[in-house]
Amino acid sequence: MKIEKKQKLVKSWFMDLQEIICDTIEKIEKDYGSNVKFKKNRWKHGEFRTIKGQVIEKGGVAYSNVKGKLSKELAKKVPGAKNKLSFWSSGVSVVLHPKNPKIPAMHFNTRFICTKKNWFGGGMDATPCLADNREKKYFHNELRKMCNSHNKKYYSNYKKWCDKYFYLPHRKETRGIGGIFFDYKMDDWEKDFLFVKDAGVTFNYLARNIIRKKMFLKWKKKEKDLQLIKRGRYVEFNLLYDRGTKFGLNSGGNPKAILMSMPPIASWK
Amino acid sequence: MKIEKKQKLVKSWFMDLQEIICDTIEKIEKDYGSNVKFKKNRWKHGEFRTIKGQVIEKGGVAYSNVKGKLSKELAKKVPGAKNKLSFWSSGVSVVLHPKNPKIPAMHFNTRFICTKKNWFGGGMDATPCLADNREKKYFHNELRKMCNSHNKKYYSNYKKWCDKYFYLPHRKETRGIGGIFFDYKMDDWEKDFLFVKDAGVTFNYLARNIIRKKMFLKWKKKEKDLQLIKRGRYVEFNLLYDRGTKFGLNSGGNPKAILMSMPPIASWK
Repeated sequence: MKIEKKQKLVKSWFMDLQEIICDTIEKIEKDYGSNVKFKKNRWKHGEFRTIKGQVIEKGGVAYSNVKGKLSKELAKKVPGAKNKLSFWSSGVSVVLHPKNPKIPAMHFNTRFICTKKNWFGGGMDATPCLADNREKKYFHNELRKMCNSHNKKYYSNYKKWCDKYFYLPHRKETRGIGGIFFDYKMDDWEKDFLFVKDAGVTFNYLARNIIRKKMFLKWKKKEKDLQLIKRGRYVEFNLLYDRGTKFGLNSGGNPKAILMSMPPIASWK
Repeated sequence: MKIEKKQKLVKSWFMDLQEIICDTIEKIEKDYGSNVKFKKNRWKHGEFRTIKGQVIEKGGVAYSNVKGKLSKELAKKVPGAKNKLSFWSSGVSVVLHPKNPKIPAMHFNTRFICTKKNWFGGGMDATPCLADNREKKYFHNELRKMCNSHNKKYYSNYKKWCDKYFYLPHRKETRGIGGIFFDYKMDDWEKDFLFVKDAGVTFNYLARNIIRKKMFLKWKKKEKDLQLIKRGRYVEFNLLYDRGTKFGLNSGGNPKAILMSMPPIASWK
């Protein structure tokens, strides 16, 4: 398949996925009784949608499509960019910060990058502030099932990658309970694309089920305080280590779109 | 003067300064009616003191003294470290996050670093969330006077350095109203040390006057909200750009001492 055709299919899916996830969240808000909707923010490289709801205290679902040139420095680290600096990229990223401290913060991203090579990357992970082993098992079991339906090696590889990626060395802490993380995925384009679509659908499904199960539960101030501290760690991770955040900010991306991932409010003891 | 003698004098001053500044803040809290004291946290490389007061919502005054080895990577950028990786450093750093949004957040640091060479660095700056031109003028006038009493070139040089250093390129914003910033100061040890001491005394004086002038003023919720947003920017600066924070976290420093600078609570829209 020609690269232009691949790009068209990918873009179309990413825009659909943005719609699907926003719909899911808006339905949840509606069933909760808040009726808050996403605000759509267009900019030259895409559209990021943000919500300040009663269930999702702050959420962002961003679609982007960037054509540009890599800096020479960066090109050294990017596959297929040695002699050609121009790149094409498109992606969807989602960050949900629920109001209820019993519901974990959830993050999802998939992207398609083209240089002389082209590949998919992405993943999803959950960051609870209160331990819930049943939920952790459920989250990982569903991810394992989804991964296994594509390739028996994916889950254990991508889980390990996720644990390694979402680690705060200065705190000697993981960001949350992990999930899956993959990059430079260029095995078989059609199969890879199917996997990426499945990841999106699975995130939508998992987020919905995890949120709906707990959205009416009451919480204590102590639990909310813990959530704010945990969100401080989230901020530390994103600003100190996250490659996407660094890449975006250093390459002149839209800070509002990139920092959409920041929690509504966070605290440090 | 022998380097050991210099180090002894510097350490002794830094410990005194920590005491002086903590005294100032505790007296302010007392006069406000809160009587909150600093908590002292000792660790192997120093002592950081933290306060959660009624005037200073969160404040930290840290003294540190580290003997260690630079990584080869880092040594390339450090004067006098080409063929000798071991270093000695001592410093005091202060961050004050006032509860009242009418009072600016204030930051101060001075340090003495020894490799084969030895030099002072440091500075101070203020970050208001509400414009106050009189206060800005006062702050800079006092810094100019102090600098001029040492060298007529200091103020304009160090002010520019400060503006350049405390800049958030991704936001195209300055952190606050600036102040002074200097590094690699190794002109004349005795004179440099006098300047560093004067900087400490001046910060203590300025912080006291600025806080006392406004600590009984009332504020509106809107002003407090603005403060939390401004503190978000503070977090972004410290985690994305601040060299001290990066150096500390990457070299295995104490995250609690280093991240003492984080605000008690911050928000992102």
